[in-house]
Amino acid sequence: MPTTPPPPPVPPAGDPPRTAALLVIGNELLSGKVDDANVVVLARELRGLGVVLRRVVMILDDVAEISREIRELSASHDWLFTSGGVGPTHDDLTTEAAAAAFGLPVAPAPELEELLRAHYKERLTEGHLRMALVPEGATLSRTPSVPWPAIRIRNVWLLPGVPEIFRAKMAVVAASLGAGRPFHSRAVYTKMDEGVLKPLLDAVVASFPDVDVGSYPRWSDPSYKTKLTFDGRDADRVRAAQEAFVATLPEGEPQRVE
Amino acid sequence: MPTTPPPPPVPPAGDPPRTAALLVIGNELLSGKVDDANVVVLARELRGLGVVLRRVVMILDDVAEISREIRELSASHDWLFTSGGVGPTHDDLTTEAAAAAFGLPVAPAPELEELLRAHYKERLTEGHLRMALVPEGATLSRTPSVPWPAIRIRNVWLLPGVPEIFRAKMAVVAASLGAGRPFHSRAVYTKMDEGVLKPLLDAVVASFPDVDVGSYPRWSDPSYKTKLTFDGRDADRVRAAQEAFVATLPEGEPQRVE
Repeated sequence: MPTTPPPPPVPPAGDPPRTAALLVIGNELLSGKVDDANVVVLARELRGLGVVLRRVVMILDDVAEISREIRELSASHDWLFTSGGVGPTHDDLTTEAAAAAFGLPVAPAPELEELLRAHYKERLTEGHLRMALVPEGATLSRTPSVPWPAIRIRNVWLLPGVPEIFRAKMAVVAASLGAGRPFHSRAVYTKMDEGVLKPLLDAVVASFPDVDVGSYPRWSDPSYKTKLTFDGRDADRVRAAQEAFVATLPEGEPQRVE
Repeated sequence: MPTTPPPPPVPPAGDPPRTAALLVIGNELLSGKVDDANVVVLARELRGLGVVLRRVVMILDDVAEISREIRELSASHDWLFTSGGVGPTHDDLTTEAAAAAFGLPVAPAPELEELLRAHYKERLTEGHLRMALVPEGATLSRTPSVPWPAIRIRNVWLLPGVPEIFRAKMAVVAASLGAGRPFHSRAVYTKMDEGVLKPLLDAVVASFPDVDVGSYPRWSDPSYKTKLTFDGRDADRVRAAQEAFVATLPEGEPQRVE
């Protein structure tokens, strides 16, 4: 089985950031039985790699709908990640849907069969062997710390939904995608409310169109009322935007900066 | 301001369940700065009302994209809920996007202006007054326990993203949507793994096409390995499916049923 290839080089400064989408699959999430734990994990991992997560879609266990979403999201983003639906039971439809999305058959991967036979030995069932099925031509990647490979077909990573395993796969994803230009984040905390802050925010947004300015009111925190965030890929511009904004605040503000 | 009208009557038994989608808006979620807390809250609320949440979409603060999603999701579901982007600052774009989705102007709601003037008094700013803007023709609903109204335009509820407030609005949503035929859920816990369970699950799925059967492996829980769920709107059929499945388990199983 091929191990993960060396990561691609860091792109030059002018390049637009790479984009990604996440497709989360599972009736248990949309019925509220289970609270998703994977969105924030992937979002943070991609952020650290300089990749913009642009869209998350959460849908039911429906093979036609999963397939349609895989086709559309993989075509419109550099990378698509799926979470869930890769086990051996009747409600695990992601492998089949991903294969159908690209007009490919599903076929057993010999490396996965070997791993399953070694693990289950004489207890091995046909059900277990279903876990060796992948879209034909899929790439299997692993790192020394993650023995079970991550499955990728074209630009689509088929990740398991179980949070412990999803998290473990992030090491493989990071090694494969490689580092991009990182994002820089700064924050300002004030006791002013958004209605009062609005003209000051409008001014900094107008002066720094290349910096993403966010405003987040906080309830039931005595130490501040609104958190302002400044994000971008140019550390100097992010710092300059933060400083320009802080300079417009009245006496006694900000409460703190980060 | 009109208070919430009386809820519609419970639909007859043969009706298909009502459907809903949730559009979650905010750069802070997709960059991993904030972990969403609203999906599971709405999912559980709708489940209790007999409404099927079919799709969740999470996107960035982009007015054109928000508008497009509102148009598409509201057309393809009985109800659409949006979370986030309804404050007064430059990154609050949901009201404008919802109005644009239906070709409506944005206009101040006199009831909201009154509430804002009463709250902020002499501190009131133009920024605060932006919070009175709604798509023209929007309905304002409230219950005695939730003084600030929930805003709805056609079948789209524009809810704030702050988790404490989002949760508080669920009472208004429940009063307005009314009770539907509820879903019934049962569960079976076993120490068998999914590969071994697969043929037993296939059998119960084939016999009970009207019952939704789910299989969820658990890691690092010594009391069971796989949880099986049985869901449907006919309580007798759900119980029958659970019993039929349990009858096929080997000696020593299940660990427990719910």
